[in-house]
Amino acid sequence: MADIAEPEDAASDHDYALSNEVVSAVHLSVATGDQERLRDLLDPLHAADIADLLEQVPTGERREILLLAPDVVDGEVLSDLDESLREEVIAFLPQEALDEAVRELDSDDVVDLIEDLEAPQQEALLDALEDADRAAVEQALSYPEFSAGRMMQREVVTAPEHWNVGDTIDFLRAHDDLPEQFYHIVLVDPRHRPSGYVTLGKLMGSRRDVALADLLEPSFRTIPIAQDEGEVAYAFNQYHLISAPVVDDSGRLVGVITIDDAMAVLDEEHEEDILRLAGVGEGRLSDSWLDTTKRRFPWLAVNLVTAILASLVIAQFDAAIAQIVALAVLMPIVASMGGNAGTQSLTVAVRAIATKDLTGENVWRVIRREALVGLANGLIFAVVMGIVGVVWFGLPMLGVVIGVAMVVNLVVAGLAGIGIPVVHERLGVDPALASGAFVTTVTDVVGFFAFLGLAEVILL
Amino acid sequence: MADIAEPEDAASDHDYALSNEVVSAVHLSVATGDQERLRDLLDPLHAADIADLLEQVPTGERREILLLAPDVVDGEVLSDLDESLREEVIAFLPQEALDEAVRELDSDDVVDLIEDLEAPQQEALLDALEDADRAAVEQALSYPEFSAGRMMQREVVTAPEHWNVGDTIDFLRAHDDLPEQFYHIVLVDPRHRPSGYVTLGKLMGSRRDVALADLLEPSFRTIPIAQDEGEVAYAFNQYHLISAPVVDDSGRLVGVITIDDAMAVLDEEHEEDILRLAGVGEGRLSDSWLDTTKRRFPWLAVNLVTAILASLVIAQFDAAIAQIVALAVLMPIVASMGGNAGTQSLTVAVRAIATKDLTGENVWRVIRREALVGLANGLIFAVVMGIVGVVWFGLPMLGVVIGVAMVVNLVVAGLAGIGIPVVHERLGVDPALASGAFVTTVTDVVGFFAFLGLAEVILL
Repeated sequence: MADIAEPEDAASDHDYALSNEVVSAVHLSVATGDQERLRDLLDPLHAADIADLLEQVPTGERREILLLAPDVVDGEVLSDLDESLREEVIAFLPQEALDEAVRELDSDDVVDLIEDLEAPQQEALLDALEDADRAAVEQALSYPEFSAGRMMQREVVTAPEHWNVGDTIDFLRAHDDLPEQFYHIVLVDPRHRPSGYVTLGKLMGSRRDVALADLLEPSFRTIPIAQDEGEVAYAFNQYHLISAPVVDDSGRLVGVITIDDAMAVLDEEHEEDILRLAGVGEGRLSDSWLDTTKRRFPWLAVNLVTAILASLVIAQFDAAIAQIVALAVLMPIVASMGGNAGTQSLTVAVRAIATKDLTGENVWRVIRREALVGLANGLIFAVVMGIVGVVWFGLPMLGVVIGVAMVVNLVVAGLAGIGIPVVHERLGVDPALASGAFVTTVTDVVGFFAFLGLAEVILL
Repeated sequence: MADIAEPEDAASDHDYALSNEVVSAVHLSVATGDQERLRDLLDPLHAADIADLLEQVPTGERREILLLAPDVVDGEVLSDLDESLREEVIAFLPQEALDEAVRELDSDDVVDLIEDLEAPQQEALLDALEDADRAAVEQALSYPEFSAGRMMQREVVTAPEHWNVGDTIDFLRAHDDLPEQFYHIVLVDPRHRPSGYVTLGKLMGSRRDVALADLLEPSFRTIPIAQDEGEVAYAFNQYHLISAPVVDDSGRLVGVITIDDAMAVLDEEHEEDILRLAGVGEGRLSDSWLDTTKRRFPWLAVNLVTAILASLVIAQFDAAIAQIVALAVLMPIVASMGGNAGTQSLTVAVRAIATKDLTGENVWRVIRREALVGLANGLIFAVVMGIVGVVWFGLPMLGVVIGVAMVVNLVVAGLAGIGIPVVHERLGVDPALASGAFVTTVTDVVGFFAFLGLAEVILL
């Protein structure tokens, strides 16, 4: 790749990340205040890499970079910058640099940039726009957050349904304000309702007298303007869409969403799922320790409550534990195995719900499967732990107790792992959000209760 | 949307999933053997939805559907079908249906379809292809699995560097075998090395005498053929690519990767991360209970070993527990809080490594932050648990013990949660794969040791 790479490739290492050499050189040039060297280093970088660099350096150095080279932060860098840092960077940029940065962006990127800012900053950025652009952005901001209306760009290339290839090509050639990127010509009826689309490739490869109506792509699909952005991303991935027209309530064309925006949303949705499953909420790597502490605290607090619940169960059996300390030694194993098996089922369920693979159709079959899996693995680990119990403590009945408790808890774990997210989803709560704490509570409580309860009945 | 929807939209409900009504109607038509009704139901469905339907019904019904309507399974349905079911469906389809299905696919889709099949099935499908297509597929299969070579399609539209818009349009119009989907004209030098690309939109909107060289897109970037598919997907997402030429070791153009394939890989990579973090490996919803049990067993076995390690720690303090049973009641709380806090740090770290946001540059800062977060949350929960300990058991020093143990374990959890995946990554092991078990082991062992050890020193 090296010998044919564009200049901007020179700075990125083999796996596309910002290279350590560049970062070190940036440190040096900031430390020595070498403005010229800093610019030479940043200029060839892709906007996304400059954004990454700004995210990775400490706050103080970030400010020095912005002081030394404010003009490297163009609109694209601001777009690519993590939301949590945008406010800081925007507040620190000179107004002229900011105005210039915003003016060069497409309307959908401006929307993405300013929708999370505080009102005064929003106002300042809107002021930088020309009137038409400002109206477009304000219109987009009037649609619900996380909706198709916020994702779409308003610039769409359309053609009347009766046109042929020649009409369309002449029209395109006569226009010099075509959008930067477009892939389809959208056919619209006289009331501006889209009825199909034709790819540019097909258009170029066809004779001038061919009707557009004969070149329609079967993948055509419209998106309602209020559709949730996650659903839009799902549709792009499921139906292999490249672009899709967005329509208002009366079916009129109002914009278009392209696959690059859908891919970015898919990535964000995944991030949300994985972080929520772990109880991290919306944490960013560049957050301060104080923000991070605040963000993680509620999840740990919930966990504390569930852990205390489990302890209350243990406390019911303090007499048994006082007599046979082996119970205290072994009980965390039952709970831990249940917690793990529950997390396995839970994660499969959350992912399957996200991809719409877990439905009313197969949910009972999957629940039955999870119970069987719990039973099968439970039986295997029951035998293993039964033997460990006997060998370690020389108490055959202790082996039986831990074995039975293991089977019970793994079956319950399988059922809870699938049942709890399914119920959450039916109730309209994000299954990734709260299911983990519930599942662990169930497996802890059931694990301790089954093990200690059986022990009290059988061993005492 | 309803009034302008294409026929295929009629069958999908508002959020694009297969609707329950259609699934119920399919059940009925299969149960009554009503071939005609089944075809009427399946015909308007998108291939991806037919694939989902086949995944969701039980094995027996899947076979009946294939018997009643074998021709609904075209190439696209096979492509969209989950890998775990492809073999079963392929084995069950009549050879003619199979041949037809494979012949209509692009070479990259055929590669995707057959790369995971057993050799005899692979051979049968290859036999269905024409010689040229077969050669293309076999060539692709010679590249490493999960590489750019497997993802790319070989059909690329190229133009010599010196051409202008008119030359290119004439060339395109003279060709009737253009690829189904293409977005860029790739400029190549006389040795067929790509040097830039021009979008079809720019081409259409420019005068015939404009040189292609004046219309180049700044986003241009080539992909080495051996590049890992995850890195390719990352590059598309990071640099907002729509398509990228693939080059061999000598820099010659060998194919092109488009964003729809990159989006599919991004989705798979995410699925892998989330499932690996939960210790589920590659489980699919349509796997049998036996396969699922086998797949989850190793992870549970690893967890058992770590749980036993933790129990060995507890066993060292059996005398203390026998004297103060409250220790047994409270000890799981310390371990559980540590496990949760560790999982929080771990998940943030795994995600940040995947997005290349955690680098040598900021790793020490993030480690310091995680330690501080652990300290801060540890102090808060130390106070809470200290009070709980005193109130519950009336032992002030027990409150001190659990408080100190909590602080120690939450700091260790933060450090382990970030340190363990970072070390894994440096060693070339997927951080999502094994980190979870290590982190829990550390938090369990440290939690029990700190709490029980302190109790022995202070309370006895």
